[in-house]
Amino acid sequence: MKKPLILVTNDDGMFAPGIKALVEVAKELAEVVVVAPNSPQSGQGHAISLTTPLRLNKVNVFKGIEAYECSGTPVDCVKLAKHVILKDRDVELCVAGINHGSNASINIIYSGTMSAAMEASLEGIKSIGFSLLDLSFKANFAPAQRYVRKIIEYGLNNKLGACKLLNVNIPKLSLKEIKGIKICRQGDGSWKEEYKESTDPRGEKYYWLTGKFVINVEAKDTDIWALQNGYISVVPSFHDLTHHESIELIKDIESINIH
Amino acid sequence: MKKPLILVTNDDGMFAPGIKALVEVAKELAEVVVVAPNSPQSGQGHAISLTTPLRLNKVNVFKGIEAYECSGTPVDCVKLAKHVILKDRDVELCVAGINHGSNASINIIYSGTMSAAMEASLEGIKSIGFSLLDLSFKANFAPAQRYVRKIIEYGLNNKLGACKLLNVNIPKLSLKEIKGIKICRQGDGSWKEEYKESTDPRGEKYYWLTGKFVINVEAKDTDIWALQNGYISVVPSFHDLTHHESIELIKDIESINIH
Repeated sequence: MKKPLILVTNDDGMFAPGIKALVEVAKELAEVVVVAPNSPQSGQGHAISLTTPLRLNKVNVFKGIEAYECSGTPVDCVKLAKHVILKDRDVELCVAGINHGSNASINIIYSGTMSAAMEASLEGIKSIGFSLLDLSFKANFAPAQRYVRKIIEYGLNNKLGACKLLNVNIPKLSLKEIKGIKICRQGDGSWKEEYKESTDPRGEKYYWLTGKFVINVEAKDTDIWALQNGYISVVPSFHDLTHHESIELIKDIESINIH
Repeated sequence: MKKPLILVTNDDGMFAPGIKALVEVAKELAEVVVVAPNSPQSGQGHAISLTTPLRLNKVNVFKGIEAYECSGTPVDCVKLAKHVILKDRDVELCVAGINHGSNASINIIYSGTMSAAMEASLEGIKSIGFSLLDLSFKANFAPAQRYVRKIIEYGLNNKLGACKLLNVNIPKLSLKEIKGIKICRQGDGSWKEEYKESTDPRGEKYYWLTGKFVINVEAKDTDIWALQNGYISVVPSFHDLTHHESIELIKDIESINIH
């Protein structure tokens, strides 16, 4: 039987240990094609390149695996994969990551990894973004890999809800310490931010974003609660940003009329 | 009585006619501070600058209006406005736009303008993104301005639903042709895309995104329907991407256990 095809991408770039960990798992389950940015693209959100041309180069980074580096954003990688590299091939699943750092709660909004995964789902491809709650370049991906493998198997064999997109976050714990998996909704944490103000060598002022993620006390059905309590969180996610509960609340705007 | 303070931003940059049209309206209703990108940033989505310093310069672009150009993305502009420029002042409302081109349907995901507006709502500021369905630099913003003024007045005097964020799209019509305003949910259009492949002066291949937005037959409660039928669409929007309907559908993932 022909092996299914998995597209692998990320936002930390082709040389991040996290994508290597993901390729190692995916190649045991499927044919793998990697299309990833040629530089780190954390925080790129759903950015796409409209006004600049994109470069694509076939590279030999993962032994025996077809791989391409792209000059664009994570979302550009998925679009190029779909419309140029794999245009005549059926992609069964897209997996993005393993991201170095959390994409739980509102981090999904800023995440290049989750935006790449969402772009695949917009293209009709089932898609899963994986993140490990460890920002270090030297993070230990071994415990995560065991679960990632099982979740990819699930993704190959099942629909991923009606939304086709999962946001999977994995706590920085040993395999023994991880309690299991929880299906969750997105928790509502927030960033407490500030800008470090400084002066460059030419005497010009600049600002550099810094901050920390503030975890509120969260309900038991959220990804934040799951991760704080030793579980892997899985949030089915979708590109519809409508706040349906507010539709009736602002209905009186319709009474505005200029005529 | 002290005038309320409105923060104005966009993604088309400080010199786009759309932001000028928005400032003209906002300054009649409130004190205005403008913080906008120093170059066009269409399609930047929710990108933020993590690995590069940001520059901020006070500029005299709009007569009598406090304005700053920023080297970063639209979301960076809002963060710098909140945490550096306006940190000791109460912002009553953020308005973004007027965008040159539609941010209805899934375009909200890619839009720097709507991401800037969403960032303000994440910071607890009521926020409205405005877009005119005319990509031209020479677009006529006059009919839109009449409605923008009324909607800003509404935003100053009312809660904007429980979500604090509105996505307002205005059809390219005369004032007489605009039928009124509809409160909607986000419609589900899609992009039919391809890449133009070409070769640069040095003989290297490149790809450039092209495509057109495909409007499906849409239900009457969507922004796409409203715009197609001569109405201004207003979608209350939110940063929760959970697809709640899928939570039960994928509950069986919880049975995965490695131990």
